[in-house]
Amino acid sequence: MDASGVADLRSDTVTRPGPGMRAVMAGAEVGDDLFGEDPTVRALEERLAGLFGFPAALFTPSGVMANQIALQLLVAPGEELVCDAEAHVLAHEEASPARYGGIQTRTVRAERGVVTAALLAGAVRRGNAYTLGTRAVEVEQTHTRAGGTVHPLETLREVRALTSGAGVAVHMDGARIWNAMAATGTSAAQYGQTADSLSVCLSKGLGAPVGSVLLLRSEHLPRAKKLRHGLGGGMRQSGILAAAGLYALDHHVERIAEDHEHARLLAAGLRDAGFAVRPPETNIVLVAVPGADEVVARAAQEGVLVTAPDPDTVRLVTHLDVGDKACRRALEVLTAVMTDVVAGARNTAPAGRS
Amino acid sequence: MDASGVADLRSDTVTRPGPGMRAVMAGAEVGDDLFGEDPTVRALEERLAGLFGFPAALFTPSGVMANQIALQLLVAPGEELVCDAEAHVLAHEEASPARYGGIQTRTVRAERGVVTAALLAGAVRRGNAYTLGTRAVEVEQTHTRAGGTVHPLETLREVRALTSGAGVAVHMDGARIWNAMAATGTSAAQYGQTADSLSVCLSKGLGAPVGSVLLLRSEHLPRAKKLRHGLGGGMRQSGILAAAGLYALDHHVERIAEDHEHARLLAAGLRDAGFAVRPPETNIVLVAVPGADEVVARAAQEGVLVTAPDPDTVRLVTHLDVGDKACRRALEVLTAVMTDVVAGARNTAPAGRS
Amino acid sequence: MDASGVADLRSDTVTRPGPGMRAVMAGAEVGDDLFGEDPTVRALEERLAGLFGFPAALFTPSGVMANQIALQLLVAPGEELVCDAEAHVLAHEEASPARYGGIQTRTVRAERGVVTAALLAGAVRRGNAYTLGTRAVEVEQTHTRAGGTVHPLETLREVRALTSGAGVAVHMDGARIWNAMAATGTSAAQYGQTADSLSVCLSKGLGAPVGSVLLLRSEHLPRAKKLRHGLGGGMRQSGILAAAGLYALDHHVERIAEDHEHARLLAAGLRDAGFAVRPPETNIVLVAVPGADEVVARAAQEGVLVTAPDPDTVRLVTHLDVGDKACRRALEVLTAVMTDVVAGARNTAPAGRS
Amino acid sequence: MDASGVADLRSDTVTRPGPGMRAVMAGAEVGDDLFGEDPTVRALEERLAGLFGFPAALFTPSGVMANQIALQLLVAPGEELVCDAEAHVLAHEEASPARYGGIQTRTVRAERGVVTAALLAGAVRRGNAYTLGTRAVEVEQTHTRAGGTVHPLETLREVRALTSGAGVAVHMDGARIWNAMAATGTSAAQYGQTADSLSVCLSKGLGAPVGSVLLLRSEHLPRAKKLRHGLGGGMRQSGILAAAGLYALDHHVERIAEDHEHARLLAAGLRDAGFAVRPPETNIVLVAVPGADEVVARAAQEGVLVTAPDPDTVRLVTHLDVGDKACRRALEVLTAVMTDVVAGARNTAPAGRS
Repeated sequence: MDASGVADLRSDTVTRPGPGMRAVMAGAEVGDDLFGEDPTVRALEERLAGLFGFPAALFTPSGVMANQIALQLLVAPGEELVCDAEAHVLAHEEASPARYGGIQTRTVRAERGVVTAALLAGAVRRGNAYTLGTRAVEVEQTHTRAGGTVHPLETLREVRALTSGAGVAVHMDGARIWNAMAATGTSAAQYGQTADSLSVCLSKGLGAPVGSVLLLRSEHLPRAKKLRHGLGGGMRQSGILAAAGLYALDHHVERIAEDHEHARLLAAGLRDAGFAVRPPETNIVLVAVPGADEVVARAAQEGVLVTAPDPDTVRLVTHLDVGDKACRRALEVLTAVMTDVVAGARNTAPAGRS
Repeated sequence: MDASGVADLRSDTVTRPGPGMRAVMAGAEVGDDLFGEDPTVRALEERLAGLFGFPAALFTPSGVMANQIALQLLVAPGEELVCDAEAHVLAHEEASPARYGGIQTRTVRAERGVVTAALLAGAVRRGNAYTLGTRAVEVEQTHTRAGGTVHPLETLREVRALTSGAGVAVHMDGARIWNAMAATGTSAAQYGQTADSLSVCLSKGLGAPVGSVLLLRSEHLPRAKKLRHGLGGGMRQSGILAAAGLYALDHHVERIAEDHEHARLLAAGLRDAGFAVRPPETNIVLVAVPGADEVVARAAQEGVLVTAPDPDTVRLVTHLDVGDKACRRALEVLTAVMTDVVAGARNTAPAGRS
Repeated sequence: MDASGVADLRSDTVTRPGPGMRAVMAGAEVGDDLFGEDPTVRALEERLAGLFGFPAALFTPSGVMANQIALQLLVAPGEELVCDAEAHVLAHEEASPARYGGIQTRTVRAERGVVTAALLAGAVRRGNAYTLGTRAVEVEQTHTRAGGTVHPLETLREVRALTSGAGVAVHMDGARIWNAMAATGTSAAQYGQTADSLSVCLSKGLGAPVGSVLLLRSEHLPRAKKLRHGLGGGMRQSGILAAAGLYALDHHVERIAEDHEHARLLAAGLRDAGFAVRPPETNIVLVAVPGADEVVARAAQEGVLVTAPDPDTVRLVTHLDVGDKACRRALEVLTAVMTDVVAGARNTAPAGRS
Repeated sequence: MDASGVADLRSDTVTRPGPGMRAVMAGAEVGDDLFGEDPTVRALEERLAGLFGFPAALFTPSGVMANQIALQLLVAPGEELVCDAEAHVLAHEEASPARYGGIQTRTVRAERGVVTAALLAGAVRRGNAYTLGTRAVEVEQTHTRAGGTVHPLETLREVRALTSGAGVAVHMDGARIWNAMAATGTSAAQYGQTADSLSVCLSKGLGAPVGSVLLLRSEHLPRAKKLRHGLGGGMRQSGILAAAGLYALDHHVERIAEDHEHARLLAAGLRDAGFAVRPPETNIVLVAVPGADEVVARAAQEGVLVTAPDPDTVRLVTHLDVGDKACRRALEVLTAVMTDVVAGARNTAPAGRS
């Protein structure tokens, strides 16, 4: 709940930098990053590479760009990627794998978005002169559309074993990997060992204003820089933005546990009020409720912002700009609004169905 | 079984034109088809358009090209196509939908390759400012990799109803639609009403040497011609090839029932010999047998050619160049070879597993 | 002039196979070329490979496809090709280098379409971390839009020397290389040594109904086959078409000199009648005349078919279906029509300009 | 010359934000720009739209992205763009027009990079059923590789008249349009009227750390946002960066005249010292000198950073981080180094040539 009294649970991307973060941005040492001369960008890249156990890293203006660079590095035009049918890279990245990468996608329907070795065993294809083989697999940690669900480390290790054996690469879209780390205690380095490339986002749970970092192999770095440039992600004194990322790594990683606590609080409250809510694994709560669009509209009038990914689902996302008090008020408002909307739906249902 | 005594059951694409077909090719009236002046090509296009109830048709050098033109007509770069994960357009067309069309593919896993409205209801997505919607659906009649399985007319009508309601187009890859017609008695026009575009092949069951025809809406024709030209499918005096297609329509449609009879004969014989064979719906027989590659190699030595789509499956495809006698001999050879290979596999299995 | 009395000088693509060619097509031994089993296709590929001194060859349904496969082999998506601004690959191939190959084109404006080392020296660029370098050069032999002009062997050798030194490949679009050979006496092998890949057409001067052949390096062949398949150029019993190509190589190569003689005859006659005609180097005659569209329409009424590439140019193309008599009649008709159209243009010109 | 005593004349992209700019960045009001809620981004977009007389504007992380979005808006895959052979979009944007846009490029060789109507008249092509037409033209203001040269307003108006008549769109890459405005007194609005879309850069002469703005037609805005997102340019609290742009518009536009004064000073000094220097039109100085790479290396040792776009050219770019004193020192150092390098080259030349 910000100064205006609004609790914005639409996404963890809406966070605004606070005074501390703004101060380090204002003081950041910068240079021309296209010449490789921005010391703050380099510091951020090196820190994240170290944390996740990768030899190289590249700062990008968005998670979409980090993902698209990674996919183009691992999969050439005319080759194939296998991923979940509800993956962010297919739902929310404007078909860029195919459009810009010429990459064919074949999808599995993963329970809770969690791609397993068993699923992949039936989907990854070996190619020959007449049949197209699979070149890479993508997994999403945590899985956005499934509601912030976590790929367990063991699952990722099995995926890695299966794909390595088949000569298939793995990209992990780790936009919310910080939430997976907070929820499971698995370390960055442990997750890092299960993928050939890994994108992490600074502007979701971490609360920086702009930017993602792609972790990758050293030999991919020169081509990754060219791909970034061609996509339009070459920036100049981007150390201003990287400084916020460094600040977030210092101050906003541990506190992600609070977001998860808030998500559990919201879920429990709504469940107690009789709504169908899956226990949240991280910071995303999905509530099954008819008339979701009406819930969104009416809650907004009360200063509680949520979204409706589909007509029967309301989505709540917790983050550092929504504190205890705002959460409690959001719960109150949503309980009232949803109860009312559901009652209304019943009353206006055709007589024959009552 | 041709003059050499070989029974080639690898594919129905291996048929060679006989004297009657060669005679009409030799006498075909031709012109420059890029100027729209080949009367035989036009006659073939008009005949097939009439048969399937489409206003326009376009001759192409292959089924791959007919499919790719259709997909590019229905789905723009950056848009999405939904189809079966085992579709021919994804397995055997070199990723051209993504590579050349910029088309994102999301897949369902359809039982026996038959895409149903129920499956699509969970896969077709409506787009908005943040989410990519589905633009078209593709179905394959009959389904190659599933073993020549048939989409029933009712299923196609349900798919059509669902997609029409959602503003989603349908392309049917009807390379072997002739087999579906023969197996079900459904007419060309009935199938034609369930799709926005439909490709039919002349060089599989119909036995022409080269060519497919894409059936489409009139307003798509000028763009289809440009797409064909850009892909390299603009041919000059192609009436030579079209003449074979016309001949095949006159002489080779009804006889497809024989291919199905042969497939049933092969399947029944192998089942009687103890092998796991799904009853064939059309002209493709899939036999589950370990050591499939060895079966392929040893049967070839006996003059019976088959394929192994995967290490545990042998595939037999019947067609007009494999008559009764050749089928019976193939059955004999395959029964012996497969029995022997299976026995060998048992004998060499580790003691602990016996 | 065919049986109908029409002299079709629109293009050398309009030729129709005669009885001899049709006979060999009807008798051609064929197989499934996608399995590499069509003996006639293989014979054609081997013969042309030998003739031009290339280790490998690939039959395609069109010159457009042969060119596009070659460009995709030599230039990856995101790389650059330099060619003449009036090249066929840019004017008449539907932008496929960029659209399907992701290939950037930068162009020179070559005098008479003849790309020289001097021109390339100022256009081919060496790349570095910030600048895109040039990957390949394309030349067209003979050059269609420039009017069938010839790249002299010495020019091609200089181009080859310059490009080799810079690590830049050369593709030659040799759709009408037969005409260059006839006009200069340069051998196929001599031209062949100046390019990394070379496409030759069977359905222009050679008079076969359909097909081109791409000559290439051995190591490119497997990828070339996959590219052909993905573009939709994989054909089955295409030996029917290849047989016509073999026949044309036996019977239609030497006679191309007649087409050149006819072109000179037409050019000389029109020049004598007062029209501006560049002396033809091969089988294409370009006449500068205002009201070209009217000339085309009125000559057609007299049974003489020509084209107008632009409003002030009439184009005549000679070929094996236009004999002496037809040429003389075409000259007579065109002289009369053009004289009349020019006179009409003068009479209707505004008074002040007369 | 910064605190370290280095005069960095490599590019005007190397400027670093000063205290004033950093202060407004630190205090900027922000929101989630992907939801259209960042007030500072909107303020910047509206201000630039107003200035250049466009109805809509879009903030992007780089000039490359602004250009690529514009080209994709104006030219569909399979269509053609005409531009100068030395344009930035072809030399320094990783072939993205072709690779990501499927856009064919045909180029003119413009004197000093200035594309004129006369040049375009011979290059822009009208399409028909067989020939690809031109869809758009691109001009660069000022032209980087030609040395910061200016397209005069009258030239742009003639280009606009010619293209409008032919149904051809115009995109202006105005990364350094601020320099053209300063050099000529032409207003932003006057330039704006000559193009369908116009990209302007904030991080070159204006000295902001990151960002460009694409000015465009209203009806293009929704698609432009989707293209930006798919390319990976969707940013969240980008108001931090936009604030720097607004500050630059307030404080750094008029002072660009100083950069031009410095460029003239450097050019005049080097000319006086005997070097071949074209009088600079804006802030870029190109000096013809053999051994350019050696000049670059030796000047760097003296704390003067320049570049060598080719082996015989040294390039100097003036900007707000290089003041009077630094310029004078750079002139001194470069005169000495270049004189020395040239003398050395003479002394080491083979005797026969002296």
